[in-house]
Amino acid sequence: MRIWGAMENDPVFCQPPETPSVDEQRRLATLRMNKLKDLDFLSNEEILEDPRKYFTFLFAVNQFDPGTMIKYVVPFQFFVSSILGLGTQKHKHYLKSTDKREISGCFALTEIAHGTNTKGIRTEAVFDPSTREFVLHTPDFEAAKCWAGSLGHSSTHATVFAQLITPDGVRHGLHAFVVPIRCPRTLLAYPGIIVGDMGEKLGLNAMDNGFLMFNHYRIPKDCLLDKTGGVDDFGVYKTPYRDPQKRFGASLGSLSAGRVAIVNLCSSNMSKAIVIAVRYSAVRKQFGPPTPSNASGRLPTELPVIEYQLQQWRLLPLLAAAYAMKVFADVICETFIQFAISNAFKDDSEKMLGLGIELHGLLSSAKPLCSWITQKGIQECREACGGHGYLKCAGFGNLRSDNDANCTYEGDNNVLLQQTSNWLLQVWSSVQSNSPVLSPLQSIFFLKNYKELQKKKFNVKSLEGVMNPEEILEMYQWLICHLLASTKKAYDQILFKSMGGPSDTPSSRGETEDTFTARNNTQAYLAHSLSLAYVEHFMIFGLLKRCREQQDGAISLVLEKLCALFGLWRLESHLATFYEGGYAVGPELVQFVRKGVVALCSQLKREAVALADAISPPDFILNSVLGHSSGEVYKHLQSAFFQTPGALSRPSWWQHILPRQAKL
Amino acid sequence: MRIWGAMENDPVFCQPPETPSVDEQRRLATLRMNKLKDLDFLSNEEILEDPRKYFTFLFAVNQFDPGTMIKYVVPFQFFVSSILGLGTQKHKHYLKSTDKREISGCFALTEIAHGTNTKGIRTEAVFDPSTREFVLHTPDFEAAKCWAGSLGHSSTHATVFAQLITPDGVRHGLHAFVVPIRCPRTLLAYPGIIVGDMGEKLGLNAMDNGFLMFNHYRIPKDCLLDKTGGVDDFGVYKTPYRDPQKRFGASLGSLSAGRVAIVNLCSSNMSKAIVIAVRYSAVRKQFGPPTPSNASGRLPTELPVIEYQLQQWRLLPLLAAAYAMKVFADVICETFIQFAISNAFKDDSEKMLGLGIELHGLLSSAKPLCSWITQKGIQECREACGGHGYLKCAGFGNLRSDNDANCTYEGDNNVLLQQTSNWLLQVWSSVQSNSPVLSPLQSIFFLKNYKELQKKKFNVKSLEGVMNPEEILEMYQWLICHLLASTKKAYDQILFKSMGGPSDTPSSRGETEDTFTARNNTQAYLAHSLSLAYVEHFMIFGLLKRCREQQDGAISLVLEKLCALFGLWRLESHLATFYEGGYAVGPELVQFVRKGVVALCSQLKREAVALADAISPPDFILNSVLGHSSGEVYKHLQSAFFQTPGALSRPSWWQHILPRQAKL
Repeated sequence: MRIWGAMENDPVFCQPPETPSVDEQRRLATLRMNKLKDLDFLSNEEILEDPRKYFTFLFAVNQFDPGTMIKYVVPFQFFVSSILGLGTQKHKHYLKSTDKREISGCFALTEIAHGTNTKGIRTEAVFDPSTREFVLHTPDFEAAKCWAGSLGHSSTHATVFAQLITPDGVRHGLHAFVVPIRCPRTLLAYPGIIVGDMGEKLGLNAMDNGFLMFNHYRIPKDCLLDKTGGVDDFGVYKTPYRDPQKRFGASLGSLSAGRVAIVNLCSSNMSKAIVIAVRYSAVRKQFGPPTPSNASGRLPTELPVIEYQLQQWRLLPLLAAAYAMKVFADVICETFIQFAISNAFKDDSEKMLGLGIELHGLLSSAKPLCSWITQKGIQECREACGGHGYLKCAGFGNLRSDNDANCTYEGDNNVLLQQTSNWLLQVWSSVQSNSPVLSPLQSIFFLKNYKELQKKKFNVKSLEGVMNPEEILEMYQWLICHLLASTKKAYDQILFKSMGGPSDTPSSRGETEDTFTARNNTQAYLAHSLSLAYVEHFMIFGLLKRCREQQDGAISLVLEKLCALFGLWRLESHLATFYEGGYAVGPELVQFVRKGVVALCSQLKREAVALADAISPPDFILNSVLGHSSGEVYKHLQSAFFQTPGALSRPSWWQHILPRQAKL
Repeated sequence: MRIWGAMENDPVFCQPPETPSVDEQRRLATLRMNKLKDLDFLSNEEILEDPRKYFTFLFAVNQFDPGTMIKYVVPFQFFVSSILGLGTQKHKHYLKSTDKREISGCFALTEIAHGTNTKGIRTEAVFDPSTREFVLHTPDFEAAKCWAGSLGHSSTHATVFAQLITPDGVRHGLHAFVVPIRCPRTLLAYPGIIVGDMGEKLGLNAMDNGFLMFNHYRIPKDCLLDKTGGVDDFGVYKTPYRDPQKRFGASLGSLSAGRVAIVNLCSSNMSKAIVIAVRYSAVRKQFGPPTPSNASGRLPTELPVIEYQLQQWRLLPLLAAAYAMKVFADVICETFIQFAISNAFKDDSEKMLGLGIELHGLLSSAKPLCSWITQKGIQECREACGGHGYLKCAGFGNLRSDNDANCTYEGDNNVLLQQTSNWLLQVWSSVQSNSPVLSPLQSIFFLKNYKELQKKKFNVKSLEGVMNPEEILEMYQWLICHLLASTKKAYDQILFKSMGGPSDTPSSRGETEDTFTARNNTQAYLAHSLSLAYVEHFMIFGLLKRCREQQDGAISLVLEKLCALFGLWRLESHLATFYEGGYAVGPELVQFVRKGVVALCSQLKREAVALADAISPPDFILNSVLGHSSGEVYKHLQSAFFQTPGALSRPSWWQHILPRQAKL
């Protein structure tokens, strides 16, 4: 509230009624970024004391405007983290210069032809011992760096990832270099570089994503961020890592915080959308029951649209999802901070290793699930608000466009899900060979009971039974085991066919063409569903835990219903698989689950506005005519119409409207 | 191709690289609208000879830009149709003036607080016999007209729907009036009117949607479009209709063409999106199988992403859907034209009546299904193109934003689906009482066999079996009967509970509070799914018919696979219901259907680019860097980056970027 209050009081954060030009959006975002830095909401001491505060700051700014948040994050977080994570003592001066705003840095990894497959990056950095310089070169446009935020117009420096090549021609893999891009005094690009803006995007246009090409561009040797490896003056490569894979992993390690952030951003976006839709649905009236004394022909009393089953069914699961994501985001954020701190203190205990792996598995499926729920959810909220939801002043447009990026960056959703399923399949092998599996977060604690779980059948006898979150979790546990077994079976069948025999431990032999094929051909309905079911189970589990911590019995009751609704709503998408796997026979499972969703929607209807209010930011941040906390939708709508510049006046080009007339 | 060629040759149709301001978009759309009129592609004779040509013209313009199409349609189609449909001889002069562009008209029905429920419209038109004028009045802002296209800035006249009130105070229901809004010479609004623009929207900003309020605004008596009813000079109401319901229906009749158009617009939008995604997926390479001789550390040969099962699974069903929608749109368009012609010739045979009802049922579910498939499909295509899909120059942004409106206007999708299910439930009652049911389009021909259909069980024994479109249709026929029976049963249970006894024919007694409740509480998973299943069945049926008409055996084979893929993909979303209804037991149905989808995707992969090419407009119209027909994605991307104004230069506000630095 302190951050939001300060923003509301500063005219630079005032939102214009019409989308400004791309250039103006960037100018504004730059002013806002610098103002946020000036306001200096959090001291380093405060952040060190409770690092969650830094995340809270980012999410507060994100709820104001994702573009402003990202604009801030690139120089002051992404760039700084790359120096801290990959550089050594001699690079510290970049941090100081950034803080004083003498320079502005960005992070350039992705290339035109290689995004997801970072191993395919082709920018070269050849060491020239005669001048002790690296020569950066972009072989062709396909190897141009791209998508780097702030590179388009604003950055003076970029952390650039390139293939380090020593004078002997040996390629040492991806390394990061701090590269001067533009003169900090003139903001003009240096010769030997082509740098520019990628143009308009579907959203986040406050950010100037750029591309960058090097033409044998020379930088001093010290520009190499050499924590993970470097060269001496003669060009001899030195690294503290023996395994090139590990070095590569460490280089990319600084990316992992991104997925924690995205889960939180999605949660805050979903909250905004559902608050608007729920509040509007409680105000908007349409149709109503016919009244017996309807002879006068007058309109019967109309009902608020939230009274209709269909509207409840469309919106309340999304309200539940907003809560589930919020709780999950909090938990994962805290866990990640603990993990990062332990890492900083070089805690390499087995538990920490296990936590790191489990966090990766969770985040690789949570980021896809949360961004998809939010993307689809915003669309549903937009539609649920009808025509007025299509107005910019309703607030869904920017939400949908900006959130869309969350489905792609920091790992394409579909590709990322494979990280989770690959890991789960490894765990599955371990479990079956009775090897111990670490699960400090308890996301897979149940797998040790897989034999009993696989034997389970649906035996809930009542609608109430299926509305119990514990039952939902049990059903999910069967589902995850079943999907693990089915995916593994399909994988082995493909391998068996191609190799003429069953595979025992293909992963231990490394990826082969056969395992590559087998993995790719077991995604649809199998590995893909597995990863989603896994993280859904964990999110229900987490939400239930949080409900049980709630002291107030009345609140706890409502939250538990919300938890059951989220669980049944997600479970509904897997129903057919329960029959396919023999867990259920007969109509009960389908009927109970679907009736449960509808019943919970109906029971939660009265609480919907309060539940929305509880997660809503103030009106200035929500910035929606339809979602105003006063409920005075039509007054705000009228104000918005009347006060938009030019709304009531004749346009300057009015003579074009009736050309024949104008000629008279 | 003639229309597209002419547009490509005219600079006014050149698309700017960056989204212009809302005002500039409107100026441009106005110029384009007038240019389209000047180009005069179709004479009235040509349209009379083959009315499909007019639709073809609209869809051609829509594929260029939906905003331009709508801008054209409002004065030259919506306004003109309202005069033709509701006016009499004395109103003909409006048509002539429109054609000469001396005036520009629009269509104003919706009000701020009443959109879907048109019966709730509150604008009043009180006849004053002393001056023989109607006095139009808007009681409050909630009754302001809104969403009328072109009303924001451009219209001189509007067809306004208002409650006609005679001097005796009797309300005669909604009537349409041609109301002068702005002076055609000055384009300034007349006193007594507040008219203005609704501001920026999520899409279609070329269109100036307006709002309109009357302050006891007087118009001559002849402004009433009096085909369905009028007043004499003394204010006595006269109508050729006895039943006010019929009059109301006739007044709104001019709206029904809209849904035919929307189905076609969605089809053309989906085609554009899937063409871009398929072509890009055939060019974009990422990852690849490891090669045995991979010791050098060089990147293995990468595969085009369309080679991956997951990418096929995401895109090929949408390609099939684009074909299914295209075929359906053609059929429904032709049928609608025949129907409209017969109507014009006052053919009120029983067959025509049946056709009208069936058309309404089909369109009320086809419009939702097609707009949703397209909306979700565009999003999927955007994501399937990764980061570059997020660039404006990829082309998905406007498609998604513009298509979104199709989910809402001409009837909100969820509300519209109820029209279909209400009708189907009536049919179900007729069928069960052995009353004849007309189905000239054969969309419900199978219902007469409902007893046999309901007894059917899944008995396909092979994967190939389930890939046969005939089998898919049979499964759908069982599904529709089951959903009809389930919905009816649930409806009756609610009535029974509230009335203390079973209902026989509630519809014959008219809507009561109980039937209102029963209907509203049987939507989720029941009536809602029913309407979708019904139209899906018809679309598969139509696509199969068209496949069978194909002479070339090789093409027919591919199209039939496309048909099966569309069918199985849609059927997959209903799988659980087949188990719930006892149609299937055991794993085969789920496994066959899912394996069928994956197998068909894989089989169609080789044909995907050809199938995309066959439905693609030329590059100028597709207007996508990623979807260019040459496949030279990266060259076009580079051109787009380099040629965007300002991309390579320093922004004018560069001093704001490093504020501390600037102070030095």
